[in-house]
Amino acid sequence: FDRVREELGTPEVFVYNAGAFQMGGILELTPEQFDDCLRANCSGGFLGAREVLPGMVEMGRGTIILTGATASLRGGARFAALSTGKFALRALSQSMAREFGPQGVHVAHVVVDGQIDTPRVRGMSPDREESTMLSPGSIAETYWQLHSQDPSAWTLEMDLRPAVESF
Amino acid sequence: FDRVREELGTPEVFVYNAGAFQMGGILELTPEQFDDCLRANCSGGFLGAREVLPGMVEMGRGTIILTGATASLRGGARFAALSTGKFALRALSQSMAREFGPQGVHVAHVVVDGQIDTPRVRGMSPDREESTMLSPGSIAETYWQLHSQDPSAWTLEMDLRPAVESF
Amino acid sequence: FDRVREELGTPEVFVYNAGAFQMGGILELTPEQFDDCLRANCSGGFLGAREVLPGMVEMGRGTIILTGATASLRGGARFAALSTGKFALRALSQSMAREFGPQGVHVAHVVVDGQIDTPRVRGMSPDREESTMLSPGSIAETYWQLHSQDPSAWTLEMDLRPAVESF
Amino acid sequence: FDRVREELGTPEVFVYNAGAFQMGGILELTPEQFDDCLRANCSGGFLGAREVLPGMVEMGRGTIILTGATASLRGGARFAALSTGKFALRALSQSMAREFGPQGVHVAHVVVDGQIDTPRVRGMSPDREESTMLSPGSIAETYWQLHSQDPSAWTLEMDLRPAVESF
Repeated sequence: FDRVREELGTPEVFVYNAGAFQMGGILELTPEQFDDCLRANCSGGFLGAREVLPGMVEMGRGTIILTGATASLRGGARFAALSTGKFALRALSQSMAREFGPQGVHVAHVVVDGQIDTPRVRGMSPDREESTMLSPGSIAETYWQLHSQDPSAWTLEMDLRPAVESF
Repeated sequence: FDRVREELGTPEVFVYNAGAFQMGGILELTPEQFDDCLRANCSGGFLGAREVLPGMVEMGRGTIILTGATASLRGGARFAALSTGKFALRALSQSMAREFGPQGVHVAHVVVDGQIDTPRVRGMSPDREESTMLSPGSIAETYWQLHSQDPSAWTLEMDLRPAVESF
Repeated sequence: FDRVREELGTPEVFVYNAGAFQMGGILELTPEQFDDCLRANCSGGFLGAREVLPGMVEMGRGTIILTGATASLRGGARFAALSTGKFALRALSQSMAREFGPQGVHVAHVVVDGQIDTPRVRGMSPDREESTMLSPGSIAETYWQLHSQDPSAWTLEMDLRPAVESF
Repeated sequence: FDRVREELGTPEVFVYNAGAFQMGGILELTPEQFDDCLRANCSGGFLGAREVLPGMVEMGRGTIILTGATASLRGGARFAALSTGKFALRALSQSMAREFGPQGVHVAHVVVDGQIDTPRVRGMSPDREESTMLSPGSIAETYWQLHSQDPSAWTLEMDLRPAVESF
């Protein structure tokens, strides 16, 4: 963050998309795995927001977008290490939006529901139809539109998924 | 709808924003008031969607946006005649999105949480600060962005409120 | 209701479990089917509550339990005629609880998530394992406990499902 | 837990009600405070459940009740250190219920919405009317009823609040 501020100036946008996940049942996860996932999925958003908020508050503008997933709204079996942190990140978003919205900082939480069309995902399932994945460019467009929203009508929560996704 | 189709062609976008509301406790509302509100707030969206969906399905594209309110998510005391229909409209949105998304029709539900800056609202509270109201232009911009979303990443549900709104 | 009051006195408990459902896509349902389901699934609860509330308010006690379903929380494809009314019934429950709780009337909404072990369901799938269905007696026990709750700690919303249900 | 098992045998019920909360804005909380709250409000439930689950699974029965709060469903301004952990605990409950329900262990999450009538709360506001607080005995009664539920109809989520509570 120091280098970003030095080289690029005070950030106007902060997108938090870090994620860590160890699939496993409650008796299979170690306490370290559980806490590490919780910290990566939630505390990291808190730490990052603390870095950019002072500058945003001073400017009276800025956008913080926190990326959620299906696990933000549903605690599936063997997904505890993901959904605990993702639920928590949504709580953080709501709390930050209520605290900093009136100070000019737009906080939004986006549930990305589906696979993103990345080289890694393509590598794992090369025959998968393109239309069943979210394109990074389409997600970026919506994030850009969130940043461009007028303070008269800000979005706190929204979801994104492919048209063909069954949910 | 016949005239629209005749004069303008098959609709590509349908926005449903009709609302009817009689504030009152359960023992004060008449059955007619209760059902009229339910029909205006929900059934009208169903009737309208039925008019535009066949053309949209044939084209394989189109956007239906249904406007919700705080009452879509919370049944307040003396708000039964509004929240029943608004909850129901949200159910309709979800059901239509799941049925018609795979056929190329984008269905979205937007919770507009706050007063809209209209001449009527201004007339009722002339001293109200502009920043406490949603501007119609800002809402329209988001509706336009919803219509412009790529099928790779469609939004089903989102909210809109002024930056300063307490909620 | 007149006969009930005459023969049994002022009702202390009112359970609304009426349901009507026509499965079908948006373009297959008729407006009559749509509105009939909405009225059976929601307006009937309003009409029934209006009959029992005056007596309950006068006594300063009473319990109204409205039965929901999975469709109370999720609008599935081809389930619009069920989920609209079930969402609306949940809104009605919240609104009534907030209006009449302080007057001593306990309003609760119970999402029954699964098949109930009735002769009709048994007839349709005779080989179904008993453990996959909700027993009417177990549901009744929870409804009785809701009625027995002390005003110091009332439940507005809860769910019920078989231990083995996947959800 | 070792001592409990030694002196009392395998636990049949585990209630997790630990809570830690430091009120404060995002820029006032230290990373240590944030993580400590997250661990007390969520990870502790995971650690405790790990202790009792093996015995419960072996017996094929047992009840785990995790206590939530209003902050389980709403991230209020300056409440991030509470709501993140409480949201996460709800995710944990859902995940455990889905994993262990079919193995005979009943997991439930109860949102206690209001002040509990404890000596500490009484001490802080001695003139507070009794009816505005949840009595510990009434909460205990509902927890007992949850433990007594038949596997045919188990509750995963419910709320509790005083009849007069405004919410």
